[in-house]
Amino acid sequence: MTDDADAAALAERVRAGDIRLYELDDHADAATAAAARRRVLERETGAALDATADYAFDPERAADANVENLVGGTQLPLGVAGPLAVDGDAASDDYRLPLATTEGALVASINRGCSAITAAGGANARVTKRGMTRAPVFRVADVTEGAEVARWVEDNVAELREAAEATTSHGTLDEITHYVVGDNVYLRFAYDTADAMGMNMVTIATRAACEVVESETPASLVALSGNLCSDKKPAAINAVEGRGRTVTADVRIPRDVVEERFGVAPEAVAEVNTRKNLVGSAKAGSLGFNAHAANVVAAVFLATGQDAAQVVEGSNCITTVEAREDELYASVNLASLEVGTVGGGTKLPTQAEALDVLGVRGGGDPAGSNADELAEVIAAGALAGELSLLAALASRHLSSAHEELGR
Amino acid sequence: MTDDADAAALAERVRAGDIRLYELDDHADAATAAAARRRVLERETGAALDATADYAFDPERAADANVENLVGGTQLPLGVAGPLAVDGDAASDDYRLPLATTEGALVASINRGCSAITAAGGANARVTKRGMTRAPVFRVADVTEGAEVARWVEDNVAELREAAEATTSHGTLDEITHYVVGDNVYLRFAYDTADAMGMNMVTIATRAACEVVESETPASLVALSGNLCSDKKPAAINAVEGRGRTVTADVRIPRDVVEERFGVAPEAVAEVNTRKNLVGSAKAGSLGFNAHAANVVAAVFLATGQDAAQVVEGSNCITTVEAREDELYASVNLASLEVGTVGGGTKLPTQAEALDVLGVRGGGDPAGSNADELAEVIAAGALAGELSLLAALASRHLSSAHEELGR
Amino acid sequence: MTDDADAAALAERVRAGDIRLYELDDHADAATAAAARRRVLERETGAALDATADYAFDPERAADANVENLVGGTQLPLGVAGPLAVDGDAASDDYRLPLATTEGALVASINRGCSAITAAGGANARVTKRGMTRAPVFRVADVTEGAEVARWVEDNVAELREAAEATTSHGTLDEITHYVVGDNVYLRFAYDTADAMGMNMVTIATRAACEVVESETPASLVALSGNLCSDKKPAAINAVEGRGRTVTADVRIPRDVVEERFGVAPEAVAEVNTRKNLVGSAKAGSLGFNAHAANVVAAVFLATGQDAAQVVEGSNCITTVEAREDELYASVNLASLEVGTVGGGTKLPTQAEALDVLGVRGGGDPAGSNADELAEVIAAGALAGELSLLAALASRHLSSAHEELGR
Amino acid sequence: MTDDADAAALAERVRAGDIRLYELDDHADAATAAAARRRVLERETGAALDATADYAFDPERAADANVENLVGGTQLPLGVAGPLAVDGDAASDDYRLPLATTEGALVASINRGCSAITAAGGANARVTKRGMTRAPVFRVADVTEGAEVARWVEDNVAELREAAEATTSHGTLDEITHYVVGDNVYLRFAYDTADAMGMNMVTIATRAACEVVESETPASLVALSGNLCSDKKPAAINAVEGRGRTVTADVRIPRDVVEERFGVAPEAVAEVNTRKNLVGSAKAGSLGFNAHAANVVAAVFLATGQDAAQVVEGSNCITTVEAREDELYASVNLASLEVGTVGGGTKLPTQAEALDVLGVRGGGDPAGSNADELAEVIAAGALAGELSLLAALASRHLSSAHEELGR
Repeated sequence: MTDDADAAALAERVRAGDIRLYELDDHADAATAAAARRRVLERETGAALDATADYAFDPERAADANVENLVGGTQLPLGVAGPLAVDGDAASDDYRLPLATTEGALVASINRGCSAITAAGGANARVTKRGMTRAPVFRVADVTEGAEVARWVEDNVAELREAAEATTSHGTLDEITHYVVGDNVYLRFAYDTADAMGMNMVTIATRAACEVVESETPASLVALSGNLCSDKKPAAINAVEGRGRTVTADVRIPRDVVEERFGVAPEAVAEVNTRKNLVGSAKAGSLGFNAHAANVVAAVFLATGQDAAQVVEGSNCITTVEAREDELYASVNLASLEVGTVGGGTKLPTQAEALDVLGVRGGGDPAGSNADELAEVIAAGALAGELSLLAALASRHLSSAHEELGR
Repeated sequence: MTDDADAAALAERVRAGDIRLYELDDHADAATAAAARRRVLERETGAALDATADYAFDPERAADANVENLVGGTQLPLGVAGPLAVDGDAASDDYRLPLATTEGALVASINRGCSAITAAGGANARVTKRGMTRAPVFRVADVTEGAEVARWVEDNVAELREAAEATTSHGTLDEITHYVVGDNVYLRFAYDTADAMGMNMVTIATRAACEVVESETPASLVALSGNLCSDKKPAAINAVEGRGRTVTADVRIPRDVVEERFGVAPEAVAEVNTRKNLVGSAKAGSLGFNAHAANVVAAVFLATGQDAAQVVEGSNCITTVEAREDELYASVNLASLEVGTVGGGTKLPTQAEALDVLGVRGGGDPAGSNADELAEVIAAGALAGELSLLAALASRHLSSAHEELGR
Repeated sequence: MTDDADAAALAERVRAGDIRLYELDDHADAATAAAARRRVLERETGAALDATADYAFDPERAADANVENLVGGTQLPLGVAGPLAVDGDAASDDYRLPLATTEGALVASINRGCSAITAAGGANARVTKRGMTRAPVFRVADVTEGAEVARWVEDNVAELREAAEATTSHGTLDEITHYVVGDNVYLRFAYDTADAMGMNMVTIATRAACEVVESETPASLVALSGNLCSDKKPAAINAVEGRGRTVTADVRIPRDVVEERFGVAPEAVAEVNTRKNLVGSAKAGSLGFNAHAANVVAAVFLATGQDAAQVVEGSNCITTVEAREDELYASVNLASLEVGTVGGGTKLPTQAEALDVLGVRGGGDPAGSNADELAEVIAAGALAGELSLLAALASRHLSSAHEELGR
Repeated sequence: MTDDADAAALAERVRAGDIRLYELDDHADAATAAAARRRVLERETGAALDATADYAFDPERAADANVENLVGGTQLPLGVAGPLAVDGDAASDDYRLPLATTEGALVASINRGCSAITAAGGANARVTKRGMTRAPVFRVADVTEGAEVARWVEDNVAELREAAEATTSHGTLDEITHYVVGDNVYLRFAYDTADAMGMNMVTIATRAACEVVESETPASLVALSGNLCSDKKPAAINAVEGRGRTVTADVRIPRDVVEERFGVAPEAVAEVNTRKNLVGSAKAGSLGFNAHAANVVAAVFLATGQDAAQVVEGSNCITTVEAREDELYASVNLASLEVGTVGGGTKLPTQAEALDVLGVRGGGDPAGSNADELAEVIAAGALAGELSLLAALASRHLSSAHEELGR
């Protein structure tokens, strides 16, 4: 695929200080440039990059869309859980859940949860809110001017919407919320971005709207993102108001299914949930009232080409469990699940294949329905993961209690 | 590598309901089992899993240590940033930073930050705290008993340490903190786990200590994790008290270097940081006072085999920037960076190669120094990412102002 | 005022178990009942309640509107700060700030801040949001039903508004936000309550709306308050979205005024603010990025008959300070200041007098303007308190540095 | 008590610009100065300050210890709840709870809760942690120096303790925790302050320790409080690690007592608690997982001379409720209850009387036991308030359901 001699020569020129690592793309195709970089790194560090060299994606496309200074590929094992029956608004099927992970026992645990959910007739799931956000911060003279700018924005949403939506054929601006903090005005723009995760889309659209704000008011843009968005940070604004998809899933599992699949009574699962996920998280000052939702979110995100750093917001999850006479009721609420089925990493070969496994690759019909479906499936998967881990914790206790008694 | 006919036959048996997907490992080697699973998925979903089949790791080892229901591999583009000069306690070198990502422009941006830091003579970095935690929750009769159990624990740390440390040759128990909430007692055990990220190690050690608590006091274990740990959730307890490594890095960049590399004045970078990362995050109810530290954490975590879901805690970062007469001062504090250079995903081929690029594969000498070094390098990398994005936000504003004037 | 013999006889009957303490109101006027209670307490506990007996309000009215089991009065010293020049939307005057407190040095400190602000020409202040909230929680069958209820609410805001507003002549329903968490549906109702703090008003109005929800949907009310309100708890939802009044105030103080009044340079004040109020609060996992805003809020609340427990939300304040060439810029943002000038404790004699000192007793013209004015004055007062304490911290440091040098 | 003619003359001199309001204490006794201030305010604002003039405390002592620019008194109605049976470590009695409030129905509600608790045999209560904190912030050159300073502090706790404890005869330094954030070093000093709330004590002691840090290390003090204390702000560090007293209380109430006193089943109370206090607070991004603990804290604080602004930290409360076959179990955990029985407002006449009602005025024997007792009683009172409001919410629902059925 690459020309070894070319790569060697280029590596030599980098070492000689003739070319910089990032300039290699100007001197060779992406594969050769990556080969040259590997040689440089190998020489510098003594590492052998053979596995890294053995990638399966198109280096030109990756170098164009996904990465700079391409060196090769990182490979993660991909497992599968399911079937997972989901009855959602967009999702309605028995799904096989692709999970990329390096943590042993995780897939088996999620799989066990899927099995119980499916045996119980499946999980319900609903996206209750959509809204990818971008929140620029403006400088104003003082709070008097800040209040005027805020009022101007309230009165001119139509004009701002027009400017924002002119930049995109897919996104629609739903809402602008203002926050005046001293001589700062933050405007939180929330968009429906259909099947795209949408960060780029909303950044460009918001930039256009900011130009209108700057030309029509005395406000001066300081930064296109003022952290009330809030992207890739653990923030209450996302946990409360949502970002991307707000999605909630639940299931009722008959008591005998709980006992058979998990080896514990519903009461034990509920007790662990209350003492750990509710009271324990409360005491920890947490925004995540769950056991390990981030594990499921991360594994599906990696498998399907989502943004790995947005696992942060994906962990804003509340899990509830109630033991009832005949059944166990359990739910998850993921406040800020940022997913897309177009753009970003979704076009990479293995990631596209994983989206195909779920049947959600590309734009949905109607627009947004594929990303909704993905969100609903992830929520049901997170529910599976929660149930399985909570039950494991509950039964491990029992087993240790048993051992204790047996002494 | 696999026997197609075997895989086809096995897939047929799965479809016939004869074998379950997860039972395939009992009927074939890992590669064949994975091939059979791909066939099942392809038939069920219509997906073609050619790229997924093209993986470079040893399926037996992956199926043994990292994943169940192995299907194949997920491939992420790997880029490189640097050299990044770091002057830490464990780190002291010019590093090439391996970054696995699907987000275009990220590597280039981090690279720009590395370049400025290195041109300025490098970043300082220090691990100021080590402590992997596990916090079981116990049930007690009432608060009176809870207070007695807490006092017993205070008085018997030595016995609990002995039990915990008997389970491991690498970990040492540093501290136990108790929290009595009604009829719950939470005990937060903090360990030095040397070069391991250490979740498994501390879970096993804590379980042994819990048995002592249960046998010597009336407390009854409800769950080995009571969420005061707190693993893979956005929680203040981690942001305040730390988990894994607490690491902080900083740099002083001469004014002319800032202007040359970033095209903006230090004052503009500082203003963006104050209005966005400090005031904006404050208003957002955030635990993350940074621009995009999670991006760097995620990309290095994926490249080097860390746990992707722990990007959540990795985002607990505070960034500070000060414009001074001759220079820009910038720092990051990552409160809870959970890293290891042994175990988990670090043994996978591409991940091990990336650790070799950093020179931190395996156990360090002294023990823990490799993980410390990795933490210090990631902190310096996060600092590079912060500087570059803050500067981009600052200058984008200028450019838009320029365009505006040019109309 | 009271008949001692009657009180003694009644106290005797209480001691004999004939009457309960709270039944005394059925057997005597409020003053006599209070006297009897004091006798009971004195006999039981040995306390002498002479000062408690010496109250100045009308016991009948207090017993009717403000307290049960009246015993007497608690007296707090009342001080005054100012004049404090405020240029707000509703506030526009030089105010004398009544402050009830037991903390020595507090009034003097606030007074010093007022003096600097007024010398600088006064503070700007603006209420940027009004909205007293009440958030009932409903039980639904599952998330599917929850999503349907949420949609029904979205589609029937007019009907809910009609029901809610039928219960009040002053309040208007501005917004209903829904949150579906498993089988819980939370509806956050936000009202403009004009000059009333409004908790009772919005509780009654929301109850009426809940009856409509219950009759028109399958949702079943669990509690009229589901803590997304959130009343008297430290909650991000209030810090982010506001409750009561969201009010922000700022001031520009010429450099020479700063140095003369505070004995420090603007840079020192700004440094303390950044390192303490911004970075320190960030590290503390705080929702309050200020020095002691709660002190001012508490002292004015107590003086003017506000609800003391709502000091909790009053502490959700962000303080910013910037040192500029010629001046110091400082601001406060109080996200959730819950104030009223009618109802509650505002009718008590000393409290009504304090409202008169501020010129905001009773309903405003237009409605809501008195409570707006009070909010703007409190914000300016909080700004005064912040400036004074930050400067004191800054200069105390200098003085200690001086002492050190002088050794 | 005051000389009217003198006051009139002084007021005239203030109006003439001859004397400032705060200088009046130099020209007259405290009572006359207060009278003169009232005259000035009356003239300026048109208010009549008759009730304000009618105070019962000694103006000289108040002006000396509690307030500046004394104007008069603010009077709050004082009610009483109880008897409240508490079985604590320091508390062991049937208490009458003094409650100063202006919110009608509050005392009655708390009283109902006390009645149920006492009928059930009383509440348990335990202080599980004591520690008044002060956290100065220091500037260092960079993180390298910061790490060195932190290590120096770790190694020299004895020297710092000696310096700190030399300033006080009551306080002992228990712990110093360090946080390095860029070029900031925060040191959180935690003291046992016995029966004093202790803010002044720990500020003075910490100042002495800071002088040692400054003289022995390169660190330079920026502010004696760096907000990791954290005083009068809603901060996770207090909710997690505690401040003042960490106190927890609980009770088991037989099912028939619950039904008789509250008119609801234990299950209904538990359901409200879970959906409102746990899940609702979780969704609100709250640090307060309770219904209205701040109401009880505020009312007792005001009655007994505590610092009203510290109600903020007092609201960091987690309430748990469990319905059992024969009983209801309920608990509260107040993480950061800052109380004292000596100093501050505790010496004012009405406040001292309220402390006498509780039997906790002045220093305890052993030292600290009076403040412990007060903390345990407040916790039990908060538990009473929680039970009563939760039950009211639960039954109000039933009544509305009944009305609905009756239509």
